[in-house]
Amino acid sequence: MAHALSRRDLDFLLYEWLDVESLTAHGRFSEHSRDTFDAVLDLTADLAEKHFIPHNRDADANEPHMLPDGTVETIPAVKAALDAYGESGLITGTFDESIGGMQLPTTVARASMAWLQASNAGTSSYALLTTANAALLAEYGTGDQVETFVKPMLEGRWFGTMCLSEPQAGSSLADVATRAEKQDDGTYRVTGSKMWISGGDQNLSENIVHLVLAKTPGGEPGVKSISLFIVPKFLPDGDGIGERNDITLTGLNHKMGNRGTTNAALAIGDGTHLPGGRAGAVGYLVGEEHKGLSYMFHMMNEARIGVGFLATALGYVGYLKAVEYAAGRTQGRPLGAKDPSAPPVAIIEHPDVRRMLLAQKAYVEGGLALGLYSSRIVDDLAVETDPEKAADLGLLLDVLTPIAKSWPSQWCLKANDLAIQVHGGYGYTRDYDVEQHYRDNRLNPIHEGTHGVQALDLLGRKVIMRGGRGLALLTERIAATVAAGREADGDASEYADQLDTAWTRIVSVTDALWADADPVSALANASVYLEAFGHGVVAWLWLEQFLAADGQVGDFYDGKRMATRYFFAHELPQTGPWIDLLASRDTTTTDMNPAWF
Amino acid sequence: MAHALSRRDLDFLLYEWLDVESLTAHGRFSEHSRDTFDAVLDLTADLAEKHFIPHNRDADANEPHMLPDGTVETIPAVKAALDAYGESGLITGTFDESIGGMQLPTTVARASMAWLQASNAGTSSYALLTTANAALLAEYGTGDQVETFVKPMLEGRWFGTMCLSEPQAGSSLADVATRAEKQDDGTYRVTGSKMWISGGDQNLSENIVHLVLAKTPGGEPGVKSISLFIVPKFLPDGDGIGERNDITLTGLNHKMGNRGTTNAALAIGDGTHLPGGRAGAVGYLVGEEHKGLSYMFHMMNEARIGVGFLATALGYVGYLKAVEYAAGRTQGRPLGAKDPSAPPVAIIEHPDVRRMLLAQKAYVEGGLALGLYSSRIVDDLAVETDPEKAADLGLLLDVLTPIAKSWPSQWCLKANDLAIQVHGGYGYTRDYDVEQHYRDNRLNPIHEGTHGVQALDLLGRKVIMRGGRGLALLTERIAATVAAGREADGDASEYADQLDTAWTRIVSVTDALWADADPVSALANASVYLEAFGHGVVAWLWLEQFLAADGQVGDFYDGKRMATRYFFAHELPQTGPWIDLLASRDTTTTDMNPAWF
Repeated sequence: MAHALSRRDLDFLLYEWLDVESLTAHGRFSEHSRDTFDAVLDLTADLAEKHFIPHNRDADANEPHMLPDGTVETIPAVKAALDAYGESGLITGTFDESIGGMQLPTTVARASMAWLQASNAGTSSYALLTTANAALLAEYGTGDQVETFVKPMLEGRWFGTMCLSEPQAGSSLADVATRAEKQDDGTYRVTGSKMWISGGDQNLSENIVHLVLAKTPGGEPGVKSISLFIVPKFLPDGDGIGERNDITLTGLNHKMGNRGTTNAALAIGDGTHLPGGRAGAVGYLVGEEHKGLSYMFHMMNEARIGVGFLATALGYVGYLKAVEYAAGRTQGRPLGAKDPSAPPVAIIEHPDVRRMLLAQKAYVEGGLALGLYSSRIVDDLAVETDPEKAADLGLLLDVLTPIAKSWPSQWCLKANDLAIQVHGGYGYTRDYDVEQHYRDNRLNPIHEGTHGVQALDLLGRKVIMRGGRGLALLTERIAATVAAGREADGDASEYADQLDTAWTRIVSVTDALWADADPVSALANASVYLEAFGHGVVAWLWLEQFLAADGQVGDFYDGKRMATRYFFAHELPQTGPWIDLLASRDTTTTDMNPAWF
Repeated sequence: MAHALSRRDLDFLLYEWLDVESLTAHGRFSEHSRDTFDAVLDLTADLAEKHFIPHNRDADANEPHMLPDGTVETIPAVKAALDAYGESGLITGTFDESIGGMQLPTTVARASMAWLQASNAGTSSYALLTTANAALLAEYGTGDQVETFVKPMLEGRWFGTMCLSEPQAGSSLADVATRAEKQDDGTYRVTGSKMWISGGDQNLSENIVHLVLAKTPGGEPGVKSISLFIVPKFLPDGDGIGERNDITLTGLNHKMGNRGTTNAALAIGDGTHLPGGRAGAVGYLVGEEHKGLSYMFHMMNEARIGVGFLATALGYVGYLKAVEYAAGRTQGRPLGAKDPSAPPVAIIEHPDVRRMLLAQKAYVEGGLALGLYSSRIVDDLAVETDPEKAADLGLLLDVLTPIAKSWPSQWCLKANDLAIQVHGGYGYTRDYDVEQHYRDNRLNPIHEGTHGVQALDLLGRKVIMRGGRGLALLTERIAATVAAGREADGDASEYADQLDTAWTRIVSVTDALWADADPVSALANASVYLEAFGHGVVAWLWLEQFLAADGQVGDFYDGKRMATRYFFAHELPQTGPWIDLLASRDTTTTDMNPAWF
């Protein structure tokens, strides 16, 4: 079977560690069982094998392009795969039964999607964006909007996008210049330019449901005047599509990787099309005016965790291929071997190759644990009836989201780099997959909020909001794991001590950084903080896995133990100098004068 | 002017720090002066601007390909650039006047080549390989071989390659299977397959001088039976070319980057061509039989430092483009700004962008200092008349070579990664250069000995050979800089203390690792050692630069001071956990069982 994720690892994480089965005790998930979860994962693997994996390289070598008539051409296998995905019903995973959903736990749905992401980053992204878009509308849209826009998405006939960035504004949403003006019939007319829109145009779905941030008159300056609109490519008409709306592809970006997904510049309301006989894209307001950003954050947070999964999935599949290559490729002799005429050994025998594979294992299995743990919180939140406990779960998820996005984007990308290195010269050629996985993955520290933006979100917002309650909740959970580790075997208690020391320093440096409540000095090294925090969180999740494997016998569990050992010996200690730097309140970056570069 | 390296930085490194002018006091360089050095650098910049930079992106998008008749097609601009380079005479840089060389110091010639490498990695590699090939033959070839093969290379008419790797052997030269058999006329007939041969075939030069490692009967097993042969594509005939030799292109590799240089699989002596009426490639022995590897190491060491320069050059040009982009692109507002309607600022104002630019500056200027320092030792060696001192200089160079190769390959590649990140989404598109620089640079930790091979070379050989004399000599030089730093201003003396502590630990951990003289345990974490050692060496060279800038006023010198400060605050402390790991004799990698992956 072609590589994607490891089903054995998923079974361990879902059932032996996160006990996803226990969710079926709650009404929302009571129709489910381990059997239905397994069936979803089996179906996913089958779909991946038949439809997603086979065209992964072809979609990279033959990227979508814009034809002279302004439409997009994509290799046919992409549409075939997405049609098969639509028919499988997997897209309806987490949605309510009342609107045709499977009401699956998010944890299981994410595992299924991660399998597809590992199989084909480009093609899977259309599905991921559509799900996130539909989830936003299911939450904040009117009944009519759900009927009109969400249902065709859950049927796999229409796809969704999120349109935030603009050419002049990039990550800075305060500078959004797209405008919307209310019409007498309650619809809006939208005008502006959007940039970096994944799936922004394509020839794959009957219609495209764009969710567009635009400013409406009357709000305060900055982000508080932003509203959210549905701007479909074609206006809906009954169950199908009607008039072409005035939202037009002006160009596709040509990317380093992730080429299977179109990435578009869009002109909105420039008069290329004239719905109702005049220029201006027809938009339908979602929720209330001037609250658009808060709705969009619902989709963004979901997309951010999805990006983390994508980064993990690409690292994971590269790791599996690197292990297979290293076990099969013979070269050189063991260190200290005396006989140069002895036959060469598999390169997996060389300690440096094992180091590179162990690092990959620690990163990608750590990343998967992080993503699934975060998803488990989403499920807990869905079934929590106590409002205070629900608020706490929300805060915990808020704190973990920038890590779930950024940590895999950094370290599972590093895993792809190591997968190339294990392959040597072959890994640098396009005859092997690993260089594509690297290029595909290189997008992830950039989109859905760059690494630097995640750092500001974590240190500037998440760890201090509600008086630092989110950080305190996370610290409680880590402390519980530390306590469990101390009660367990020798190695676990050493890891527990090491984690406790590192995490205590992270918490106290958080206070120190904010001691004078000055964001300029607090945030000067926010990215260093993000990285230390992320390594602390993943060390915790490795100890969690170590404890879940406690007493279990076999290669798989020995692998978990060795990856934990690797993480605590090689990775967690790196946080020492990072925290030292933060504790020193180093001002090198702020003292640097741009003229000195 | 288009970006390559910074001439201001080169002037600082060559004249204010390394005092290259003082070399002109020696007979070998007495015809030279700062004027002639400057003229070489001016000529290089002009050549780069006119011929190398303009086709850099085109050569990536339209890589060389093999035609059905077995020949190679390359975009015409590559040949035009290399013809102009040949005509410029720069290729003769370091060679003796007696064979038509300019007898330039290596330090200046390397600076010139690095400028071309920054301008166009792919095209410059043909020149670099030709120079290294000619230098080997100038050293070990007979007078006839120099006349026949070196002169056409110095005239830019013939190009050179090095043929080591084979499909089954990769880095493991003991497993070379290519064979050579002596003929009655003193020539050899060579048979075998070579793989990963840069410039292995092309349509750019009149002839190709392959230097081929092959085994001749009678040697011991392993590397001691290897001899070195000149196997030209066409047999020489007078000043020109004669019969086609039996060495044939069988395929070109399709790479992630560095696409401008062909990378070939070659069949040798398979009867495709029949020189003298029969199969077998005609080869001319270089030096003595069974000493081939020692000659080849001459070229490999030169090529390894060349790879380090290539990695530095690509990091450098990416850094300059990132600074320009960051100064011009406006987005967002300063941390802590209260007014969302204030105009956005250039992103270079954001601390995290400055951090990424400072890191790049520290890596690429550090890498350039490392390469030029190593080259200065080559020049000192060339004019040293005392055999003991010359032997010491050789040992020092031996110890530095794996660092000069690996450190820029790791950290200047990281600089390219950061240059993409500074560009945000734009950096991920092929409309900007930085993603190509990354892809081009990703080759460098792989070829001419992977990172892992450099690590084994450093820890397994270089730091222990001659009783550790090479390491002791390096430590002496570092101690001298530490002493000078302690006598200088406040910051310098703090850096000196920090360097002294780190270096002392590196030296003592070297002894500890070899305490029981067991290579298996000594080398288990060789790559970690390589990285700690490299950061120590570059910290030293930053302190050297800091001291060379001492008392100097102006933006340029302030930049050097800030990059030093960055390196000592953010980078050198990272060696702490690496050395801790080494000192603990950690066995995670050797304890890992391949079945557990």
